[in-house]
Amino acid sequence: MQFVGRKTWAIAEGYIPGESHGPAPAMTSHEACCILNPSDQAAHVAITIFFEDRDPTGPFRFEIPARRTKHLRVNNFEDPEKIPYDTPYSSLIESDVPIVVQHTRLDSRQAENALLSTIAFPAG
Amino acid sequence: MQFVGRKTWAIAEGYIPGESHGPAPAMTSHEACCILNPSDQAAHVAITIFFEDRDPTGPFRFEIPARRTKHLRVNNFEDPEKIPYDTPYSSLIESDVPIVVQHTRLDSRQAENALLSTIAFPAG
Amino acid sequence: MQFVGRKTWAIAEGYIPGESHGPAPAMTSHEACCILNPSDQAAHVAITIFFEDRDPTGPFRFEIPARRTKHLRVNNFEDPEKIPYDTPYSSLIESDVPIVVQHTRLDSRQAENALLSTIAFPAG
Amino acid sequence: MQFVGRKTWAIAEGYIPGESHGPAPAMTSHEACCILNPSDQAAHVAITIFFEDRDPTGPFRFEIPARRTKHLRVNNFEDPEKIPYDTPYSSLIESDVPIVVQHTRLDSRQAENALLSTIAFPAG
Repeated sequence: MQFVGRKTWAIAEGYIPGESHGPAPAMTSHEACCILNPSDQAAHVAITIFFEDRDPTGPFRFEIPARRTKHLRVNNFEDPEKIPYDTPYSSLIESDVPIVVQHTRLDSRQAENALLSTIAFPAG
Repeated sequence: MQFVGRKTWAIAEGYIPGESHGPAPAMTSHEACCILNPSDQAAHVAITIFFEDRDPTGPFRFEIPARRTKHLRVNNFEDPEKIPYDTPYSSLIESDVPIVVQHTRLDSRQAENALLSTIAFPAG
Repeated sequence: MQFVGRKTWAIAEGYIPGESHGPAPAMTSHEACCILNPSDQAAHVAITIFFEDRDPTGPFRFEIPARRTKHLRVNNFEDPEKIPYDTPYSSLIESDVPIVVQHTRLDSRQAENALLSTIAFPAG
Repeated sequence: MQFVGRKTWAIAEGYIPGESHGPAPAMTSHEACCILNPSDQAAHVAITIFFEDRDPTGPFRFEIPARRTKHLRVNNFEDPEKIPYDTPYSSLIESDVPIVVQHTRLDSRQAENALLSTIAFPAG
C-alpha cells in the first residue's frame, strides 16, 4: 500500500442540531467525523474542538486500527466533555499516521432529513 | 500548535434564498462562511463579494480571535452594505494569519430544509 | 489583486433531474457551474461535457468579465447542443485566466428540494 | 488534452441507506462513485472498500474508456461481494491513468430525498 492521506485535517463547520424526527439512532440529527486509515499501522487520533466564545476543548482521543474506517459521531464524544447542541464549532484532527477525513451532517429537525458532506481540509 | 490553514480562500457559489419556512433564526434560509482560526494570534479577515452584473463590494471586516471559530451569516453582513437575496454571488476571503474556511447554505424555501456545504478553495 | 485560482477544473458528477416541483425557474431541478473570475482580465472559458456511452460534446464557450461571477445553469447550455436530462455526465472547465469553480445541484423531483455542492477539482 | 487528474483517490464517508421511498432505480437510496477519465487511454480502476470491524474487501475492478465518465453505483458492486446496507465504509480508488473522482449519496429513507456530494481526496 502506498502512502495515502495526511496527518492534520481541519473542518471549519460544526453544528449538531438539537432536535430530530424519525427513528433513533439512524435518523437522529448528528455530525460525523469519518476517518479512513488505509495504512498498515494503527492511527492514534486527537481531535480538538473550537468554539466561538470559549477556549477549545480536547483532545478527544480515538484509535483507528490499521486498514479500518471509523465514522465517529460527534454527538457521542464524552471525554473530556460532551459537545453542546445548537452551538457552532470547528474541528482539528491530528494523527500519528496519514489518514483521510470527511465531515457529514444529518439534520432531521424538520420532518424530512437534510444532508451535507465535504472532504475536510488537509492542513499538514 | 503547528501552522494550519491558508491566508486566501474563495467560494464560487453564493445565493441567499429569499423565502423561509420554520422558526427564525435557526431555520431561516441563510448562507454561512465558517472560519476557524486555530492559531495563537487574532485573524483580521476581509471578505469581498462578487456579483454577476456589478462591481464587487466590500471589504466586510471581521476579527476571529486566537483559537476561536466564527460562523458568519452572510445574511447579517451590513457594512458597507447588505447582500441582496435571490442573487448569485461569490466570495473572496483574505486573512493576515492562516485560517480554514467552509461554505454552508440552509435553504428552507420549501417546507423541509435542504443543506449544502464544501470546504472553500485554498487560493493562497 | 493577487493571483487567485486555476485554469483547469474538473467535476466528475453531473446529472440534471428531468422532473421538478415548485415555481420555475428558482425551484426547477438544475445543475450550476459557478465560476468566479477575481482577476482584472476577462476569462474566456471552454466547458467540455463527457458522457458514459458517447463522445464528449463542446466546447461550450462563456466569457466571465473581470471581477465578476457567473452561475451557469447547465440546463441552459445550447451551443453546440442541449445537455440531456436524466443522463450522467462530467465536466472539464478550461480558462485562459485563473478562475475558481464550484458545482451545485438543486433536485426538486420530490415535493421538497435537495441540494449538493462541492468545490470542483483544480486540475491544472 | 493536457494531463488532468490523479491516480489515487480516497473517500472517507460511505453508507448505503437500507430503505427508500419513490420510484426505483432513480429514487432508490444509493451511493455513487463518479469517475471522469478525460485522457486518451482507457483507465483500469481498482476500488478497495474498508469497514469498521473487518478486513477490507476488493478490489472491485472497472474499466473507464478514454474520454468517458462512469457513475458507478456502489449498490451494484457484486464481485468479489455485495456491499452491505446500513454499514459505514470508506473507499480507496486506484487507476493506471489519471482520473477525477466525486462521491455522491442519495438518501430517500424519508419521504423526500436528501443529497450529499464532495470531490474525493486526491491522494497520489
